[in-house]
Amino acid sequence: MRTIAADISDTLAHYQTQVNERLEAFFDKKIEEASRISHYTQEVAVNAKEYTLRGGKRLRPIFCIYGYKCLSDTNIEAIIEASISLELMQSYLLIHDDVMDEDELRRGKPTFHIVCKTLCERHFGTNKALEFGKNIAIVAGDLLEAYGEEVLAKSPFKSEYVKKAVARYAEIIKNVGYGQILDITAERKGSITEDEILMIHNLKTASYTIEGPLHIGALLAGAQEADLQVLSAYGVPLGLAFQIQDDILGLFGSEGKTGKPVGSDIREGKKTLLILHALKRCNEGEKEILLKAVGNQHVTAREIDAVRAIVRETGSFDYSKKLVEEMTDKAVRAIKESPFRSEAKDFLITIADFMGKREY
Amino acid sequence: MRTIAADISDTLAHYQTQVNERLEAFFDKKIEEASRISHYTQEVAVNAKEYTLRGGKRLRPIFCIYGYKCLSDTNIEAIIEASISLELMQSYLLIHDDVMDEDELRRGKPTFHIVCKTLCERHFGTNKALEFGKNIAIVAGDLLEAYGEEVLAKSPFKSEYVKKAVARYAEIIKNVGYGQILDITAERKGSITEDEILMIHNLKTASYTIEGPLHIGALLAGAQEADLQVLSAYGVPLGLAFQIQDDILGLFGSEGKTGKPVGSDIREGKKTLLILHALKRCNEGEKEILLKAVGNQHVTAREIDAVRAIVRETGSFDYSKKLVEEMTDKAVRAIKESPFRSEAKDFLITIADFMGKREY
Repeated sequence: MRTIAADISDTLAHYQTQVNERLEAFFDKKIEEASRISHYTQEVAVNAKEYTLRGGKRLRPIFCIYGYKCLSDTNIEAIIEASISLELMQSYLLIHDDVMDEDELRRGKPTFHIVCKTLCERHFGTNKALEFGKNIAIVAGDLLEAYGEEVLAKSPFKSEYVKKAVARYAEIIKNVGYGQILDITAERKGSITEDEILMIHNLKTASYTIEGPLHIGALLAGAQEADLQVLSAYGVPLGLAFQIQDDILGLFGSEGKTGKPVGSDIREGKKTLLILHALKRCNEGEKEILLKAVGNQHVTAREIDAVRAIVRETGSFDYSKKLVEEMTDKAVRAIKESPFRSEAKDFLITIADFMGKREY
Repeated sequence: MRTIAADISDTLAHYQTQVNERLEAFFDKKIEEASRISHYTQEVAVNAKEYTLRGGKRLRPIFCIYGYKCLSDTNIEAIIEASISLELMQSYLLIHDDVMDEDELRRGKPTFHIVCKTLCERHFGTNKALEFGKNIAIVAGDLLEAYGEEVLAKSPFKSEYVKKAVARYAEIIKNVGYGQILDITAERKGSITEDEILMIHNLKTASYTIEGPLHIGALLAGAQEADLQVLSAYGVPLGLAFQIQDDILGLFGSEGKTGKPVGSDIREGKKTLLILHALKRCNEGEKEILLKAVGNQHVTAREIDAVRAIVRETGSFDYSKKLVEEMTDKAVRAIKESPFRSEAKDFLITIADFMGKREY
């Protein structure tokens, strides 16, 4: 007998392939469009394609497709095509994020501005090549946002539905922007409260990764306000669970499965609920260990082990695990009671359990 | 008897006031929205309002309003409201532009990232304050783009029309992006051809300042492809005329009227058709003078006078003036022959003449 995990993996793989194929075809058209302007615009489009297709789980498009499937099973080809708008948004936001954070690696390869820095060095020399790379990356992000908006606005659904979906698309970008401002200021402030972390998770992850994509798909199928509310009752807690699970994996996950170096969250000084909760419950000596480790670029494996021990001993690990479970259950209950199509309900329930238990 | 210039000034002033009032009301709602998230998001919204309202001729919203008026005279309130999306786009692009160019002044006041740098210094100290300012400015630009998209997507016109207008809105952003890539690479390359300059003008000015806004307004009134073509036949040459006139004023205009320091285009090394044309026609000695002046931060008033003399002597000044005239005539002819509403035709003809003769 096949396991549920194997079934959902098949479903995910199926849509990942479909989404990737459509992204590829979309970018090929854009590369052609850009090539008619100049060699340089073409080069930017080629690199935007490589960047977008170099990895990613395509969760946002898949949630968009299943948001649609909650209400309709016609025109699946069109919803898959429309769903790539969310992956274009993702590339756009990641490119700008990497510029702001001055990160050099994304999905194991150079970030977009570093790719453009290298192009600059090849074409024009090394002087101010990083600035050139960053500037092209800012424009490329803006371009990808416009691409995503275009895909959505040109999708063949009822105009009334498309209009609402576009407004929702803009709302997601707005929420991520607000979340990003909180994030940047919190980092500068050097302190953050649990409420602020939850607010950032809500604006940057829940709205953006799960609730927003579900809404866009559902709106394209003609969703009413009540439908959107059910999807929020599912998407918001699941988004929170997803983020907390991410934090847990960031500290306790294995590099082989997550693809991230062990302890990278610690090194980057990421303020997670996990750490914040531990800080509130530990003694002075432990506090010193935590504060010394978080944000320390040269933190040792031994120090990371000590952080893990404190997170366990203070009950922060169990608390976070329990929160993931509770939030996942809440999401599942909301969707179980919904009037949606059973294929979509089954998928959303299974993926919620899957995400709560994921190891990557 | 009143002059035509006085009449059109009244019309422009009337719509400038209307657009500004609506921008103000819009931002007040956004400030309220942002204040519910945090003090910092509110502060960004407050500064985005100040930045957007500190000046500007509101040409893009006005062209949008008259694009609509070409086909309809109902629901004027709604088209004025929708037209502010173009001013939000303008703020978004200017904020990102200023980050890329590292400019410190915009409309006589600090650029957005410099405003945010100052906020950083006040709240968090001077360390990496410029980086902070730039990062917040990138996000603020992204936010304003989303605001503009939201305004358009939520406008009360027929959904079918709104859908097309949103796609056109994305297309404008895309064209500006392509133009910006050309611009950045041309600057690095250190050389540019007449074709490239015309391509940049077309992507960044014609599409963005005149043709695009006219199309968006017309689409919201239900324009068909033939209507859009007439507006392009008007907007594209007029956009080019507008840009060349800008270049002429940048070199020969008075600071009192243009608001820009005399010779700032020369200092910034802006590659204009005016200079390019002169370079092709001058002798070796003159060429040396031109190349020494363009892009020279410390260029003297005497050197700028010498540049002006060369531009006149090589016939580049007359050539550019004539091009402005020809392009303006071409635009006027296209609109004269159109089947549009006469109020809109009159305005578009008058403003074309007005722009061709403007001194600011």
